[in-house]
Amino acid sequence: MFVRNAWYCAGWDEAVGIGANDLVVRQIAGRSILLYRTGEGRLVAMEDRCPHRSAPLSLGRKEGDAIRCMYHGMLFGPDGACRQVPGMDRIPEGAVAATLPVVEKDNWIWVWLGDPARADPELICFAIGPSDPDWVLRTSHLRVDTGYREEIANLADLSHVSWVHGLTFAGSDDWGYIKPRHRLNPRGIETRYCVRGVPAPAFARHLFADDARFDINVHVRMTVPCNFILSFAVHEAEAGGAPNEPSRGKLLLDTFSSQAVTPRDAGSVDYYFSWGTSRETNFPGIVDLMHRTNMDAFLEDKRILEGQRARLLQYPGAPQVDIVHDAGPGRMLWVLDQLLAEEAAEAGAA
Amino acid sequence: MFVRNAWYCAGWDEAVGIGANDLVVRQIAGRSILLYRTGEGRLVAMEDRCPHRSAPLSLGRKEGDAIRCMYHGMLFGPDGACRQVPGMDRIPEGAVAATLPVVEKDNWIWVWLGDPARADPELICFAIGPSDPDWVLRTSHLRVDTGYREEIANLADLSHVSWVHGLTFAGSDDWGYIKPRHRLNPRGIETRYCVRGVPAPAFARHLFADDARFDINVHVRMTVPCNFILSFAVHEAEAGGAPNEPSRGKLLLDTFSSQAVTPRDAGSVDYYFSWGTSRETNFPGIVDLMHRTNMDAFLEDKRILEGQRARLLQYPGAPQVDIVHDAGPGRMLWVLDQLLAEEAAEAGAA
Amino acid sequence: MFVRNAWYCAGWDEAVGIGANDLVVRQIAGRSILLYRTGEGRLVAMEDRCPHRSAPLSLGRKEGDAIRCMYHGMLFGPDGACRQVPGMDRIPEGAVAATLPVVEKDNWIWVWLGDPARADPELICFAIGPSDPDWVLRTSHLRVDTGYREEIANLADLSHVSWVHGLTFAGSDDWGYIKPRHRLNPRGIETRYCVRGVPAPAFARHLFADDARFDINVHVRMTVPCNFILSFAVHEAEAGGAPNEPSRGKLLLDTFSSQAVTPRDAGSVDYYFSWGTSRETNFPGIVDLMHRTNMDAFLEDKRILEGQRARLLQYPGAPQVDIVHDAGPGRMLWVLDQLLAEEAAEAGAA
Repeated sequence: MFVRNAWYCAGWDEAVGIGANDLVVRQIAGRSILLYRTGEGRLVAMEDRCPHRSAPLSLGRKEGDAIRCMYHGMLFGPDGACRQVPGMDRIPEGAVAATLPVVEKDNWIWVWLGDPARADPELICFAIGPSDPDWVLRTSHLRVDTGYREEIANLADLSHVSWVHGLTFAGSDDWGYIKPRHRLNPRGIETRYCVRGVPAPAFARHLFADDARFDINVHVRMTVPCNFILSFAVHEAEAGGAPNEPSRGKLLLDTFSSQAVTPRDAGSVDYYFSWGTSRETNFPGIVDLMHRTNMDAFLEDKRILEGQRARLLQYPGAPQVDIVHDAGPGRMLWVLDQLLAEEAAEAGAA
Repeated sequence: MFVRNAWYCAGWDEAVGIGANDLVVRQIAGRSILLYRTGEGRLVAMEDRCPHRSAPLSLGRKEGDAIRCMYHGMLFGPDGACRQVPGMDRIPEGAVAATLPVVEKDNWIWVWLGDPARADPELICFAIGPSDPDWVLRTSHLRVDTGYREEIANLADLSHVSWVHGLTFAGSDDWGYIKPRHRLNPRGIETRYCVRGVPAPAFARHLFADDARFDINVHVRMTVPCNFILSFAVHEAEAGGAPNEPSRGKLLLDTFSSQAVTPRDAGSVDYYFSWGTSRETNFPGIVDLMHRTNMDAFLEDKRILEGQRARLLQYPGAPQVDIVHDAGPGRMLWVLDQLLAEEAAEAGAA
Repeated sequence: MFVRNAWYCAGWDEAVGIGANDLVVRQIAGRSILLYRTGEGRLVAMEDRCPHRSAPLSLGRKEGDAIRCMYHGMLFGPDGACRQVPGMDRIPEGAVAATLPVVEKDNWIWVWLGDPARADPELICFAIGPSDPDWVLRTSHLRVDTGYREEIANLADLSHVSWVHGLTFAGSDDWGYIKPRHRLNPRGIETRYCVRGVPAPAFARHLFADDARFDINVHVRMTVPCNFILSFAVHEAEAGGAPNEPSRGKLLLDTFSSQAVTPRDAGSVDYYFSWGTSRETNFPGIVDLMHRTNMDAFLEDKRILEGQRARLLQYPGAPQVDIVHDAGPGRMLWVLDQLLAEEAAEAGAA
């Protein structure tokens, strides 16, 4: 159900401080992962389960770079090895807390769920973090009770913008008619297109003349499990351009959004996202407005995704009809299913 | 578990208006049914599930007589056929939302879950609606977490009135001793009897002298799934009448109650009910008093039915002892089980 | 999963009064047990389920020594036999509510779940109740969402006191190093040891000089399902004593705690407990302080036990490492498993 050999986003780096009480637990792909920082600030990711009797280590006590389980006092180093069992001279075999490769990149924390030997940081998806000096970005988090496959289908097809986001992102039903081409990558898809001659989106309508028209250059990079990296550049509308060629109209607002959707379990996800403008095209108030709009819009998604999930559970196995807009979701889910099949084959051979 | 070829009550007609936001969802026998009215007021019943990716159509937008799914913009007519897929010239095969026969009668909305060809409105149970000019009736709704078989057993045996409704409907334990005869009908049972010489019921005790005694002529018509239509006429007590003959004492108060219990799923029901008097025997304040008492009494049922359900789930398969008062429930459940068996046999043959 | 032939604590005697509304239901080992007192105050324990259609008898009406089911009026005596079915001359066969042997002892109510012929009151665990004139004891109750095997493991090893109860019972990590010997009994274990030279516990630190040191003589008697009877005597520290010999330092505070943990079902328990001092060593305010501390400390247990349960459910079948402190839990669970295996063998032979 979940790819094991993949980096999963465990949230924004600032969520895990170096204080004594900064023991953060993330639910990732059915597992509970404890995150904490050593005294020097180095991040540790450990299964939140004492190997003795399964007490949560997150109810424990940080001691330097180690964590003590506060049920029976066993002390585990950042490598997961048990350093002390109070009352025993010898550490029993198997007294090891599982640890996971963990990397900080672009202000996100990434953990690797599978074979540590394959945990190549180069596989972490491209993103732009809020500390990047060229961008003015604000971040948020939302929990959605849906499967991550449904999130993939949501994000890999932006035709839904017209219908779901009519009060926020969309300014017309033009998004409903886009037909982008998607390029397959080993761990995802990449999509570029231009939505041409559209009015200002609902959230920014008041900033422009009623008859102002725009071209929007969209560049999406998606990777497993469900990371969605979006360049969204607003240009003055140019005449006669094709939807699959970028607009060469004057660049008005260059925006960027990094979104990571991490499955918590079969029926819920954590959604970590940012949005903002390049420093060059930024102007007062616009990023605040985008930030509020972003949360509003993702609550619109949450409503439809959670409604969809209710019906999927209520009508298991009901037939589904495909439409033209399933091209993106279909490709991204195909990439995911290939990786799942590979891992299943490996597990079968082992 | 549920009869398919039957009319199920989907509530009072006034609950579904003609406004843009009047998209009402009912849970019926495990399905979610969207109800809406076209611009002309005609009622449409449609499975609340887009055939594309299962988003609830009730989160959609009414457009004239059609409903647009607000996930990807597909538009469905009142016959369920897809009229438009934004971005496609051709409507894909299978792009049909399931619709159900729907009828309004006696201020109730009725939907037919099974084969539309058999949806004979003559099969809708007899009732008297609140708009009937000869009656003064008030309506209510209650949800109860119980199975509808347990509701059948509750309603098909009024001996429980003495014990469950001692503070409301009952004035003595006389109901506990009734032994009515039940007539089998193709889709239910019919029961007539007279409870004789009883004091005023608890809720109306203050209206009468302490030694006043009454005869109550009861006429019950039950039909599948669990509709309970009750004529309940209070007469002056006459001497010497038999319980299986109607009283000929002077008619004091002629009351009527239409009750439809619709299974939502295996463990909950929607209960739609009315109660009131004939216009001829009505007097000021009595219907208000009956209305309040009715809700109080059905909350008494809810308490015992939900307690019973907890124990049925806790002690699955525990033996049950039968008593004389199971005659009515037994007959009504026999009728239901016959219909279920017929449908199972048909499904097996198909 | 649960031993049948055992006494289960159903709470403090004062919880069941003789009033008309004193119908108390306890969830014990997956069953719902109704407790009530006859007019003379004699306690009755009866399955909370009418043998007719499973309505809870606890929604019924007490009539002298009998209970009437308020669904259809069946009346059951304290032996469970049906005395009346309104409307029937004959009582149907099988119209019997299951009753259970019930005993009051040391202010606790005990019910026997198995074969009544084996319900020997001598098997009820030793305890000291709050009405004992030699002791000043206060009582409490707590619900914990954990299995009773996890409660056994918690209570049969007091090394956890140092880690879980650092803010309440513990004054140092000395408890983490105890190595008591446990004696096997037919229905439990018995454990004696002395924790020597320890500072005052956190909750009483303010009552003593900082350098005061104490010996604590501990005597634990555990019995199935999970009763924990504790003598905990605080002495002046003596020099040179062994941990497995009782301290002979001057007795400062003689305390006693009776604790019964009753499984409600697979995932929750009712915890009934008392704590206090002997009348001889009591002094003003100390029992109030102990009472508050006891609840605080058991909330500390609740937090770790419920965290543990979440992880056990999340990681079913995950390997566990044993440590030295599992000796007590291992022995007590061995006793329990022997009894379970005996009952399974009997059930198989029958």
